[in-house]
This record gives sequence, C-alpha cells and structure tokens, in this order.
Amino acid sequence: MRLHNFSAGPGALPEAVLLEMKEELPAYGDLGASVLEISHRSAAYTQIEQDAKERIRRLLNIGNEWHVLFLQGGASMQFHQIPLNFRGEEVSADYVVTGRWAANALKEAQRTGKARAAASSKDRNFAYIPEVNAWDIDPEAAYLHMTSNNTVVGTQFEEVPQVDPPIVCDASSDFLSRPIDMESHSLIYAGAQKNIGPAGATVVLVHDPFLQRRNESLPVILDYGIHAAKLYNTPPVFAVYLIGKVLAWLEAQGGLAAVEEINEQKAGKLYARIDRTDFYRGTAHKDARSRMNVTFRLPSEDLEARFLSEAHNRGLLALKGHRSVGGMRASLYNACQEESVDALVAFMDDFERERG
Amino acid sequence: MRLHNFSAGPGALPEAVLLEMKEELPAYGDLGASVLEISHRSAAYTQIEQDAKERIRRLLNIGNEWHVLFLQGGASMQFHQIPLNFRGEEVSADYVVTGRWAANALKEAQRTGKARAAASSKDRNFAYIPEVNAWDIDPEAAYLHMTSNNTVVGTQFEEVPQVDPPIVCDASSDFLSRPIDMESHSLIYAGAQKNIGPAGATVVLVHDPFLQRRNESLPVILDYGIHAAKLYNTPPVFAVYLIGKVLAWLEAQGGLAAVEEINEQKAGKLYARIDRTDFYRGTAHKDARSRMNVTFRLPSEDLEARFLSEAHNRGLLALKGHRSVGGMRASLYNACQEESVDALVAFMDDFERERG
Repeated sequence: MRLHNFSAGPGALPEAVLLEMKEELPAYGDLGASVLEISHRSAAYTQIEQDAKERIRRLLNIGNEWHVLFLQGGASMQFHQIPLNFRGEEVSADYVVTGRWAANALKEAQRTGKARAAASSKDRNFAYIPEVNAWDIDPEAAYLHMTSNNTVVGTQFEEVPQVDPPIVCDASSDFLSRPIDMESHSLIYAGAQKNIGPAGATVVLVHDPFLQRRNESLPVILDYGIHAAKLYNTPPVFAVYLIGKVLAWLEAQGGLAAVEEINEQKAGKLYARIDRTDFYRGTAHKDARSRMNVTFRLPSEDLEARFLSEAHNRGLLALKGHRSVGGMRASLYNACQEESVDALVAFMDDFERERG
Repeated sequence: MRLHNFSAGPGALPEAVLLEMKEELPAYGDLGASVLEISHRSAAYTQIEQDAKERIRRLLNIGNEWHVLFLQGGASMQFHQIPLNFRGEEVSADYVVTGRWAANALKEAQRTGKARAAASSKDRNFAYIPEVNAWDIDPEAAYLHMTSNNTVVGTQFEEVPQVDPPIVCDASSDFLSRPIDMESHSLIYAGAQKNIGPAGATVVLVHDPFLQRRNESLPVILDYGIHAAKLYNTPPVFAVYLIGKVLAWLEAQGGLAAVEEINEQKAGKLYARIDRTDFYRGTAHKDARSRMNVTFRLPSEDLEARFLSEAHNRGLLALKGHRSVGGMRASLYNACQEESVDALVAFMDDFERERG
C-alpha cells in the first residue's frame, strides 16, 4: 500500500509511472531484456533519451540553442563543474546565498578560485530572499549563481532576477514545477530526484552561446561541451528512462502552466491551514514562501515529536524538517497529490483540536 | 519474453533480481513508498547500503581497512579522479595500456599532470597482455594503473602483477566475476553495469593506508576521503538497491570461487566451439583470452552480417563486436546463464553447417 509521501528528496514519483515501469519488467516491449540490461548505444535507449530531451524542450518551449544533458553526481558535482568550465583564471563569480545548498555552491567555487557572495540571507537563518535591488553585483563576474528554491528553510524566488552577469541556476528542487523564464538564464541544473525522477541523474540545460565561452583543456568528463556534442560515456540509463516517463506524465497534466496551477493550489491549501490559527507557525517569511517545501513549527518540540509520530500513524510520511532548522517540512513536489495535502490538512486540524 | 542477452554493458541482470524488484513496486515492504522515493538518509536506505557494503566485504573477504564507496560518473570519472587524488604535483603515474579504456585512462591522467605508459599492447591492436617482466616501471610512480579485463578486444589479466608502485585497477568488466587478490591492490573501481548492477553507480574499493596518502584541498565531491568518511551527497539510491540484490544472488551461488567456476565453464565452452574448426577465429591471443568478453571473427564481413541477423532471429542478442575491432563479441558476465552459451554454441554449429 502506498501512503502520503512528503519526502524532501528523493521524493515521490507518480504512481502511474511506477506501474508502467513495473509492467516493463523483466522485459521491455519486444526487446527480450529489460531497459536495465541494454547498451546505451542501442536503438532502444537512443530513442528513450531523445524522447526525454524532446519532452523537456516542448515543456520549456526551447529549441536547439539549448543543450539538454543528463549527467551524474548531483548538484554537488555541478558546484565544482560550473566554475571549472565558466570562470577564467583571474575572474570571479557571484553567488546569491539563500540557503544551505547555495552556501555549499559558493564554498566549492571558492575552493578552486575567486567567488563572492553578492547577497545573503544568512543573517535571518535563510528565512527570506534578499531584495534584488540591494545585491552587490560584480559587473565583471563570469556568472551569477542562484538557487531558485531552497529546500531546507522553504523559500523560493518568485521571478528570475534581471542582472547583468549570465545567470546559472540550481533548480534542483523546483525544476519543471512551473514555467521557466528561459531567456533570463544561461545554465539551469537540477538533480532529478525531487520533481522529475529518481536519484542518479542531473539534468543540465545550457544555452549554446554561454557554452561556447567555457574554458579550454578541461577534464573530458567534466567538460559540458563534450556531453553536448555526443553521448560520451555510459549514462544513468534507468534514471533517464524513468525521467522520460515522468515528463510524459507532466505533458499529460497539461504542461507546466497547468502543473504550476496544481502546485499553487496544493501549497495554498497548506499555508492557509498554517495561517488559520497561531498553533502552527510558518518558518519562511510570507513573501518568500516556497510552493515546494512548506516548513512550519509547533508550539514546542515535544508537540513536534508527537505530531510526527501521530502523522506517521495516519499514513503521512517524511514530515520531519531538516536538522538545521527543526520543525516540520512537507515537500509538495509534482508527484505529491492534492489528496495527500488534504489528508495532511485534516490531520493538522485534528491534531490542533486534540493537543492545541 | 526474455532472450539470450550477450550485451557488453549495460549487461544482463539475473532474472530473479528483476522479479524481486518488480514485486517491490510500487511499494517496498511496509514503507508505503517504493525504494525510488525515499530519502537517502532514511533508515530503510541506510540499511540497504550497509547490507550491500557488507556483502562486498564478505565476498572479497576484506575488513574495514578497505573503504567501499558507491560513486557516480562511471569509470570515466575515475580516470580524472584518481590522478587528482593520488598524484603529487611533480610526481608521475604509470599506466599499462592494454586496450581502448586503458588508453583513455592514461590520456585523462596526462591532461592534468605527468603520466606515462609502462607497457602497451597497441602494436598488435591490444590482442595480448604485455609480459610483466618487460614492463618499464617508474619506481617513483604514485601508482600503477591497470585494466584487469579489456572489454573491446576481449583480453584479461590472469593474475595481479607483482610490482612496486601501488596498483590501481579498473575492474569494470570483471569485478566480482572471480576471487580477487586484494592484498596486491590499493584501489579497485568498477562501473556496476557489467557484472553487478545497472548503469549509474561506480563501486570504488580503496585501501585505507593508500587513501591517507591522497592530496589535500580537493574539490569535495571528488575527494575519496569525504565519501569514505560519510554519505556526503545523494547517492544513486536505486542502483545501490539493485547492486545489493545482485550481491545477494552472488552469495547464493556460493561466492566468488563458485562464480569463477561457472564463468570458466561458460567461456570454456564458447572458446572450445571457436577452436573446433577454422570457420571461427578468436580475436585475442589464446593466453590472454577473457572469460568475460569472447571475441571472434568469421571468414568474411558478409558472413558476419548474416551471422548477426540470424542469431538475432534465434533470440541471441547483442553479439556485434565493438566498431574498432569488428566481428563478434559475446559478453558472458555473471548474469549470463550457461544455457545462453549453449544456445549460442548450438547456433554457431548450425550456422557453420549451413554457410561454412
């Protein structure tokens, strides 16, 4: 039996996708083997990968000026790979530090060269998004790195900031959860395991004019240009196959505008419940609230422990907040159904009635 | 229906593993979600990963002086990561170039520092393994890199060479297909997708005294020490889960000595068929023949094309050799059953009778 899954990642997948995958075991179509057992150079896998790339292009309404790559190593590998490719030796890069992962990205960039924080919300434990007007941007920066959604505290950018340096965005936790203003970006990356697939694949979208500005003589496996030019090495075949299925499911929902509406509806219901009384308190500032990760506290840690345990008994999974913040976190990624949010809201009502 | 799968990688998986995986969809045990949808910090995944590591330790009879890591990026990432970690700035590393992938490993090492070929079999298109006595070893080398099995031409080391520098071995295509002389190694790595799992995970075994000699100030995601100390970032959860199942299956076969016997039996039958007449010609020198990848030619390319197409009609999949070598390649990894080899041999008999 499947329960209500609010995991922050790896997160829930659409049940329809899992059932399709199940049906394609232990043999895929008339291949005579499962997708897990075929060459990444085979016609079958080539088609799977091509379809997935085309679906991403259709969902985002982009053409071939954007390269779509399926890499490995998660966002943490990107933290290293981005400055390696795009920052010249004497050049700096700007980072907007809006959370734990953004801070890690900056730290990794500083390990191998110059990088600075153009803005930070660390002063208030990352509970808000700093005003773009107040950012201290280096006009010579190779790029400006931002994190569109911050998983730990639960904040999210409303819009892509309009700045001079090319924008590189870690969209790991809100990729394809709403339409993306592609023109304002030069590179977007996302670990698949929150909104679009299982752990083990990182989607990287890189705009060709930006790609052409990368450094020379890079380690081949870390050179975005190599991966843009051809299938260089064995990709995470199975993850790409599953991503393809999730993308088809997103298209069947009606595309990203429709998906955004559903996600706003889900988050709206939960925030409304939080705000209805003083028993629950949202962790993030109201104007920076994430639709993906909804964080809140209860009046005491004792009540929080009870809340978690009773929620689990009601079939509401993975609601514990990140250890650096405490409290609760409900992750409402694409595959989290509205009925799961309804079940959570109903439980919150009951819990407040009994313990409030 | 499943057919006989001789794919060079990603390769066949045990059918029992696929059926178990199928049964655990869309929910794993009483978790309320599939393994694809749970946090890598959850108790369930922690157990899965720990079990897989313990199984590897049991199969290889090693203790905690060996770190067992599940990384991403395949062997190609290791080609970069190994010199980055283990080669000092003015120090060189030695490479034994016995195939296409060994040559790539050397090339990548040379991209970022000093590295040289201590031996090479390129003069005869990699069809043999150079005699260890004739290797030109740099006694100051940070390590000696070798490839235990060469997938493209189909050669394999019989034993681990006894040399002074620490041995770093790419065992991607024969890992856990036979017992390993661990004492003669300092680091062993293997893309999982041939003998022990799906694409998307790289197993790295690193001996602690060697690990302690690594360079400082490494990019955190490429520092073996970080991964040895803790679960640093989201691992390829699903690949590790499947690897665990394959490891359990290997243990149920009776461990590596038993698995080696089966693999020798399989390869022995196929080589005996190749050698029985002059119609088929083995590609690799007889004393260097691989038990994993059996390569052979037919009298003409026209006959080879017919062979492939008729084999496919008989349910024998993925027998085409690597484009750089031509001819046939039957990969007999752990999960390739003896009945598949029997079916191939029977087909080879029939084909020779009709076309020979």
